Amino acid sequence: PALSHVRADGTAHMVDVSGKQPTVREAVAESTLETTADVVALIADGTLPKGDALAVARVAGIMAAKQTSTLIPLCHPLPLSKVTVDFEPDGGTVRVLALVRTTALTGVEMEALTAASVAALTLYDMIKAVDKRAVINGTRVVSKSGGKSGDWTA
Amino acid sequence: PALSHVRADGTAHMVDVSGKQPTVREAVAESTLETTADVVALIADGTLPKGDALAVARVAGIMAAKQTSTLIPLCHPLPLSKVTVDFEPDGGTVRVLALVRTTALTGVEMEALTAASVAALTLYDMIKAVDKRAVINGTRVVSKSGGKSGDWTA
Amino acid sequence: PALSHVRADGTAHMVDVSGKQPTVREAVAESTLETTADVVALIADGTLPKGDALAVARVAGIMAAKQTSTLIPLCHPLPLSKVTVDFEPDGGTVRVLALVRTTALTGVEMEALTAASVAALTLYDMIKAVDKRAVINGTRVVSKSGGKSGDWTA
Amino acid sequence: PALSHVRADGTAHMVDVSGKQPTVREAVAESTLETTADVVALIADGTLPKGDALAVARVAGIMAAKQTSTLIPLCHPLPLSKVTVDFEPDGGTVRVLALVRTTALTGVEMEALTAASVAALTLYDMIKAVDKRAVINGTRVVSKSGGKSGDWTA
Amino acid sequence: PALSHVRADGTAHMVDVSGKQPTVREAVAESTLETTADVVALIADGTLPKGDALAVARVAGIMAAKQTSTLIPLCHPLPLSKVTVDFEPDGGTVRVLALVRTTALTGVEMEALTAASVAALTLYDMIKAVDKRAVINGTRVVSKSGGKSGDWTA
Amino acid sequence: PALSHVRADGTAHMVDVSGKQPTVREAVAESTLETTADVVALIADGTLPKGDALAVARVAGIMAAKQTSTLIPLCHPLPLSKVTVDFEPDGGTVRVLALVRTTALTGVEMEALTAASVAALTLYDMIKAVDKRAVINGTRVVSKSGGKSGDWTA
Repeated sequence: PALSHVRADGTAHMVDVSGKQPTVREAVAESTLETTADVVALIADGTLPKGDALAVARVAGIMAAKQTSTLIPLCHPLPLSKVTVDFEPDGGTVRVLALVRTTALTGVEMEALTAASVAALTLYDMIKAVDKRAVINGTRVVSKSGGKSGDWTA
Repeated sequence: PALSHVRADGTAHMVDVSGKQPTVREAVAESTLETTADVVALIADGTLPKGDALAVARVAGIMAAKQTSTLIPLCHPLPLSKVTVDFEPDGGTVRVLALVRTTALTGVEMEALTAASVAALTLYDMIKAVDKRAVINGTRVVSKSGGKSGDWTA
Repeated sequence: PALSHVRADGTAHMVDVSGKQPTVREAVAESTLETTADVVALIADGTLPKGDALAVARVAGIMAAKQTSTLIPLCHPLPLSKVTVDFEPDGGTVRVLALVRTTALTGVEMEALTAASVAALTLYDMIKAVDKRAVINGTRVVSKSGGKSGDWTA
Repeated sequence: PALSHVRADGTAHMVDVSGKQPTVREAVAESTLETTADVVALIADGTLPKGDALAVARVAGIMAAKQTSTLIPLCHPLPLSKVTVDFEPDGGTVRVLALVRTTALTGVEMEALTAASVAALTLYDMIKAVDKRAVINGTRVVSKSGGKSGDWTA
Repeated sequence: PALSHVRADGTAHMVDVSGKQPTVREAVAESTLETTADVVALIADGTLPKGDALAVARVAGIMAAKQTSTLIPLCHPLPLSKVTVDFEPDGGTVRVLALVRTTALTGVEMEALTAASVAALTLYDMIKAVDKRAVINGTRVVSKSGGKSGDWTA
Repeated sequence: PALSHVRADGTAHMVDVSGKQPTVREAVAESTLETTADVVALIADGTLPKGDALAVARVAGIMAAKQTSTLIPLCHPLPLSKVTVDFEPDGGTVRVLALVRTTALTGVEMEALTAASVAALTLYDMIKAVDKRAVINGTRVVSKSGGKSGDWTA
């Protein structure tokens, strides 16, 4: 692993990326809400107390991707060129998939993870009146491309 | 479950809490980063490339709690009166525990979940140079107290 | 009109509301997007290039209401207890109606106006690929209640 | 109209602009506050209860332009290189004109519209103690230049 | 000094204020920009390259007061009920005075300091094209009132 | 001094930088907290009531650098490529040093000053329970490089 960014005193810093080249970079992340089949049906039908959960969570995830560098202290602000958030309901679970693309000096894994996480949290918020035992699992990077380290798939 | 907030047309809205009474409410949420024992050692030693991960993630989680209503579309803005974020390293995992308290018209489960999630994502950001296969699991509410529905523990 | 807040030197300030009593206050505002009947059909069908415009604009309006005091320099931050945003398509127009409620020291007209305006701007953003001559008209307060000045309807 | 961005399922997304070239782009938008001649005199004289309305609204509009991508869910974050906001009082109306320039992959119509709208809303906030029947009309793009679609004037 | 808030492990946290009573609290803070008499004349005349510095800095300071809890990690979000920012030019210096009032569980010293600091930084931004050797000195609390510890003046 | 950006009517605006070339630019700023030697010992030992002050202030400064264009009205949003914040305790003072780098059309003096100021304010917040007479002095640019005007050191 590239530990070249460690400072002499080990303190936190936003690492220098100014020597890198801007290239097209993309990352896909996922996060899965685990609830019950009945609740997933309410999500799919758009009949939850607070309204159409998937549409709200999609917008929340897209907007959160753009807030990544204000949430994650050492992330660089990046000019995102594409963001999508999709949902795959399956039994008692809803899988969230977020894709983020940029042309920038560093990658967008954190942006994709933030989009997926906030979309999942938004689903959580919308179902918590009907299921207070829901859990969000499997938040992780699925694949990324671009940059010096090349393409990668989990 | 209290479905009284459903609108006739099922559209999303920020539900009315103006008839509720302000009471002291508290929620605890957790989220667990799963990586390797070697990486957890780097986290504990504060020798990661980007610096002291636990201190940075703690601040990120506390600040994120205060951003909950700007991230989760239908959350009410609440005057948080206490926020703590703690970490329990154990083998190849780090458990994040977030506690939030308020005196307000509605509960703070989403604030605690947001604090735990963003703290876990910040750890992820700080270790991703040394482990790109990390996963965040078990993001959920552990307990809550206050409000009409009373105390509850998962 | 109550001009008691004028400063001796006429400079801008966030006026003192600390002597007021917290009461339930509500405001309704509207804003109308004027485009063509064909475009309104695309909005209603959810077949615009960028996706389902009404769902996105509703979330945007609700979230904007919560950002009012960060956008309008002299607005007081208020703990909003309810926000709804609705749409009335009619021929070549879509009327946006925003309702905001709080229990606070001052009114929520600006929050309702901001919600209606940002929802209308979001519709504008989603149709501008198919109609670059759209106009937003009639942004105004429709009614308000609560507070010293009592109920009022335009 | 270019409908190439429609997704198969019609859901909302931030469309991909990564294949575009960065060019200098500019947009001018307007919005008009309609009140009374007496109130416009108070605005022009800087004798409103909350202070010098034009200076405050100018700053609010400039700052709002920079917040566009956090307010309008599907807007791309852009590195604005110039923002101006001007006012033309005329009888009982004040016309707001906002100009935004960038060197980026997509246009700045929404940034200009957001600047004009928030400046007009700020004027509204500052006069609402003396005129609660004010209306904001004619919010629209006046002209734009740069990008594939070339120059355009309303 | 009240060290009762120290945690056993010394880690950072947003301390619990939920047991306190909401009372009217006020704080005044100051910050002084030191430049040259010629530059202060340009500030006073409103003839700086970027425009009328005092009006812009006043708005910036008022808006910053409302952002205090998003900037200072362990500050509680508070419902500010009044904010003023004033300037006292004197020779080659401009003194910034910020006053903040709230009815809340804790004091507003940090809000007043943030308002004064950001107003001074805004002046710095507007004069840096004509004086790159300016310094901001004397940022401190001048007085505060309300709360358990009572009134205090520096 | 380059007064070419003055508008005919002297009003504030975000000046046009679109004709400039993107180059690597860097700025270092400083700010000094003046308190007592006893308090500096508590800061260095991490035994303050609210926790480890230096780690919290470092994160606050880094995050504030990224918020500069939302705080200082006429600053351009810039894609920061590196941010560091360091502390030099000395007797009864703590000097804050912030370094910011970008590849952009304009310089980062304000970003460095904002990082240093907010880090110093965060220290102030963490010690104010034990010293209410602290003062922040000497907030200024130490050096900058890149851009048309070349390198400069105070």
